Formats: sequence, C-alpha cells, structure tokens
Amino acid sequence: ESANEFRFQKDSLLQRLEDTEARNQTLEAQLSDLEQRLESIQLERETYRKNLRSLLELLDGKIFELTELRDTLVKLIEAS
Amino acid sequence: ESANEFRFQKDSLLQRLEDTEARNQTLEAQLSDLEQRLESIQLERETYRKNLRSLLELLDGKIFELTELRDTLVKLIEAS
Amino acid sequence: ESANEFRFQKDSLLQRLEDTEARNQTLEAQLSDLEQRLESIQLERETYRKNLRSLLELLDGKIFELTELRDTLVKLIEAS
Amino acid sequence: ESANEFRFQKDSLLQRLEDTEARNQTLEAQLSDLEQRLESIQLERETYRKNLRSLLELLDGKIFELTELRDTLVKLIEAS
Repeated sequence: ESANEFRFQKDSLLQRLEDTEARNQTLEAQLSDLEQRLESIQLERETYRKNLRSLLELLDGKIFELTELRDTLVKLIEAS
Repeated sequence: ESANEFRFQKDSLLQRLEDTEARNQTLEAQLSDLEQRLESIQLERETYRKNLRSLLELLDGKIFELTELRDTLVKLIEAS
Repeated sequence: ESANEFRFQKDSLLQRLEDTEARNQTLEAQLSDLEQRLESIQLERETYRKNLRSLLELLDGKIFELTELRDTLVKLIEAS
Repeated sequence: ESANEFRFQKDSLLQRLEDTEARNQTLEAQLSDLEQRLESIQLERETYRKNLRSLLELLDGKIFELTELRDTLVKLIEAS
C-alpha cells in the first residue's frame, strides 16, 4: 500500500480512537455519578433504619407502660 | 298499793310501750331502707366490676395488637 | 277490777316494755353498724374513683405519646 | 515518512482503539448493572414505604380504639 493510504487509515483510526476515548470519559463520569448516588442512598437507608429502630424502642416503651397500666387495672378490680 | 295507783302505773307503762313500739317501727323501716341501699350498692359494684373487666379485656386486646404491630415493624427493619 | 288484776297487767306490760326496749337496742346497734358500713363503702368508692382517675390520666398520657410516635412515623414515611 | 513508519503507527493506533473499546464495554456493563441495582432499590423503597403506610394505618386504628376505651373509662368513672 502506498504511504498515502497508510496516512489515511492512520487519521481515520485516530479519529475513532478520540471518539471512543470521549465516550469512555462520559461513561466514567456517569459511573462515578451513579456510585455516589448509590452510596448516598445506602447512607439514607442506614439513617432511616436507625430512625425506625428508635421508633421501635419508643413503641416498646409504650407497650410496656400500657401493660403496667393494665396490671394496675387488674389490681383495682381484684381489690374492689 | 291501791287499785288507783296500779291503774296509773299501768296507763303510764302502756304509754311507754306504745312509744317504744313506734320507735321500733321507725328503726325497722330505717334498717330495711339501709339494707336495700346496701344491696343496690353491691349490685352496682358488681356491674361496675364487670364493666371494668370488659375494659381490661379490651385493653389486653389493644396491647396484643400493638405488640403484633411492633413485630411487623421489627420484620420491616430487619428485611431492609 | 281488783288490785291483783291491775298488778298482773302492770307486770305483763313491764315485761313487754323490757322486750321491746331490748329489741330497740338491737335495732339501733344494727342501724349504727349498717351506717358505718355504708360510710366505709362510700370512702372506698371515693378512693376507687380516684384510682380510676389516675389510671385515666396515665392512659391519656400513653395515647398522647402513641400519637407523637405516629406523627414521627408519618414524617419518616414522607421524608423517604 | 516511510510507508513502514505509517504501518507501525497504524498498528499501534489499532491496538489502542481495541483496548479503549474493550474498556468501553466493561464500563457499559458496569453502568447497566448499577442502573439495575438503583431501579431495584427504588422498587424496594416503594414497597417499604407501602408497608410503613400499612403499619401507620394499623397504628392509627389502635390509637383510635384506645381513645374509645378511654372514653368508656371516663363514662364509668362519671357514672359511679
């Protein structure tokens, strides 16, 4: 093949390489963005779960206190 | 003692007897009234106690249902 | 009537009077006893009602706290 | 430049292009994977929220029923 033909192929390859590298950068940016969103979702979920656990402890407390109140009512009924 | 004196004593005794019997009837009426009040108070008390027992059963139900709700929350937290 | 006859009637009346007075004392003792029981029942009832009122206040507190817990859950759901 | 030199540059470019395209495919696979994970997390979250809303409705029911029970207790106290 002639030197001209090789030069033409080289330029064409160079163009495709640049396009592919540009696409690569876009993909890497998207990936990094998604990974950050996932990480932030995990953190939110962890906070959420912590809040639900606090709620659960409060609920346990209320159930315990209602049970004490119930026992007081039993004593009142039995004493009368 | 003369017959006159005996008659006088008899009349006086008769008067005291009538007064005492009248007082007796009053007392018996008061007693009967009080006994009826006591009986009615006992019945009220029994009804009251029955109502409180119903309330207690309702409360037991609510505590049981809150405990079920609590267990559902535990499962939700553990599943997340 | 003869003096003898009057004496006999007097003795008989005296006997009835004593019986009726004895019955009177018994009735007065029973009345006094019942009145004390009624009074003590009223006091018990007052104490009972006071205890039930305390129970009611406790229950009001628990319902209020469960409502706060409910509002916290609403915020958690809306925030997620 | 000689034809040899151009051929050498062409081969080198071809190699880099293939590497970059391979990297592209890897990135696209990772992206697609992450997007699926995000989507499935959103679905889980939606289910979770729905479950919490059911729990909230149950809790509302229990609070309402405890309030009814409380009103019954008030009536009992006032009636006695």
